[in-house]
Amino acid sequence: MTPKAPFFLGLDVGGTKLAAGVADAEGRLLARDEMPAGARDGPEAVIERLVGLSGRVMDASGVARSGIVATGVGCGGPLDPVAGIVREPPNLPGWHDVPLLARLREGLPHPLGERPLYLENDANAAALGEHRYGAGRGVDHLVYLTISTGIGGGIIADGRLVRGENGNAAEIGHMSVAHDGWPCPCGSRGCLEAFCSGTNIAARARSRLLAGEASRLGEMWPTTVTARDVAEAARAGDPLAVRVWEDTTAVLGAGVANVINLMNPRLVILGGGVTRAGEQLLSPVRRIALERAFPYLASVADVVLAQLGPDTGVVGAVAVAQARLVAETEVGRA
Amino acid sequence: MTPKAPFFLGLDVGGTKLAAGVADAEGRLLARDEMPAGARDGPEAVIERLVGLSGRVMDASGVARSGIVATGVGCGGPLDPVAGIVREPPNLPGWHDVPLLARLREGLPHPLGERPLYLENDANAAALGEHRYGAGRGVDHLVYLTISTGIGGGIIADGRLVRGENGNAAEIGHMSVAHDGWPCPCGSRGCLEAFCSGTNIAARARSRLLAGEASRLGEMWPTTVTARDVAEAARAGDPLAVRVWEDTTAVLGAGVANVINLMNPRLVILGGGVTRAGEQLLSPVRRIALERAFPYLASVADVVLAQLGPDTGVVGAVAVAQARLVAETEVGRA
Repeated sequence: MTPKAPFFLGLDVGGTKLAAGVADAEGRLLARDEMPAGARDGPEAVIERLVGLSGRVMDASGVARSGIVATGVGCGGPLDPVAGIVREPPNLPGWHDVPLLARLREGLPHPLGERPLYLENDANAAALGEHRYGAGRGVDHLVYLTISTGIGGGIIADGRLVRGENGNAAEIGHMSVAHDGWPCPCGSRGCLEAFCSGTNIAARARSRLLAGEASRLGEMWPTTVTARDVAEAARAGDPLAVRVWEDTTAVLGAGVANVINLMNPRLVILGGGVTRAGEQLLSPVRRIALERAFPYLASVADVVLAQLGPDTGVVGAVAVAQARLVAETEVGRA
Repeated sequence: MTPKAPFFLGLDVGGTKLAAGVADAEGRLLARDEMPAGARDGPEAVIERLVGLSGRVMDASGVARSGIVATGVGCGGPLDPVAGIVREPPNLPGWHDVPLLARLREGLPHPLGERPLYLENDANAAALGEHRYGAGRGVDHLVYLTISTGIGGGIIADGRLVRGENGNAAEIGHMSVAHDGWPCPCGSRGCLEAFCSGTNIAARARSRLLAGEASRLGEMWPTTVTARDVAEAARAGDPLAVRVWEDTTAVLGAGVANVINLMNPRLVILGGGVTRAGEQLLSPVRRIALERAFPYLASVADVVLAQLGPDTGVVGAVAVAQARLVAETEVGRA
């Protein structure tokens, strides 16, 4: 295929790594690169690295800089997607009200700084990516969940991202399905994230090991047990791991049912590192969610795995740029 | 004030009563009437009564029939708001795929049958009513909850009703906040409705009475105790009633926090019969919800009481007619 203009730059700012990509209007990546974020060096150093990475990935893409019409940036929230300001994401220590778009506008190579730049919560960006280029193509009503070290999400209703009053809708990780249950660092109880994130799947397995429950995971040094180890041991029939995995899918299934009852989506798309377990995760979550959801809403809903995989961050950022550029053009036209 | 054209007819089809009203474009009622639904007589009899009631309320309004530009109908779901078909609402026995709008098109006095008719879930209609004419005027992001014999809701995002894939979004009564908790007739567990609806507030008090707990409510014949009795006894300090009320507001508060974390609304509006308890309900629910919700989302959110009161049904139906007529006009213009 011959790549066709217009092209977009997508930037993904994570606590661990920075990623950048150049893609065409169908979300196909012409070039992609990443580097460690070095988040402990603070926002200015991270932004400088991001600018350098952007230049390199544009050079690698072979696309003339003038062919790139807009830049999308995905970043951990909370943030202000309209003003382009990152508030204070837990994964980016030292970031407080950082005017990320203004800094990029100064730093990005000409003419990108003068062209549209858009910021979005990274989970919202991933939802837009799946909507435009992934599992949710052509679907007007969908909810995306990322199950990784944390749990986040994004909601598309009537084909458009639901942002909410200050741009932070879809904090699905902090939906409580146990109002007086396990504590969550956010101050609430029973939050999905505090039970089903990769971090917490591993933590529940470790606390069972430390309580003396028998398991093949006991051969490992307890603090090194990960969610992936739990998934593998569960596949092998290890009773402790099976129990932890079943608890995980029961709680996730209840959460997904809530999402179906609230949003009446056609699709709930599961992404993030924990979904590398594939059918082992999807199959029970899907079954439980569709059993629990209100029948008339369950009848039109399905639960599927995300399709963009490790490129979600940059492709999602590209989707942000494209979607917002299109929306602004439409507003301008009216 | 002199009522000004255009005028709208609003119809509210409930399991207990039918209501109809004629209103102007600001939702002010010129006339309103109601009658028992007689739902056990089946759909055709109910529709015939609704047509008769519509004629009477139009006569009473003094508005010429030609001045009424559109009719909105609110009805219990599930229903298909696009095709105008009522599926099988639990509160309307014998209704199965009833083409309500087609029947009204035939039955309503000339020229209403030839003009736009719109159907919407009654809780969605109430949400639109509060959005256009009530507590949510000027607010782009809000969630409406009705807490009555059941619990329902409606979501407004970016100023528009969120309908979902088959028009039944916002089944907030079936959000679970106790994934392995109390059973709900829907088949799930821990649903808000199965704990906090008026019916279930009363049921929890009665089961405590029957278990022998001391209470001033014990002076009543147990099966006659209502949610209103529980609220009154709680205000008077009755320990059983206080406990039931506190359990109710704790669970509702957790549910409202979930709604805030999902939709990032500016307002959560509480309506329905149970909210006649006023501050006794609002104050703890508001406090608990804002404490539990994610701080950055709680910081822009508030929880308030609905304003339309007993007129919610018809005024909501008027809001449906107006909102959808406006939307269709805009689409036509584009």
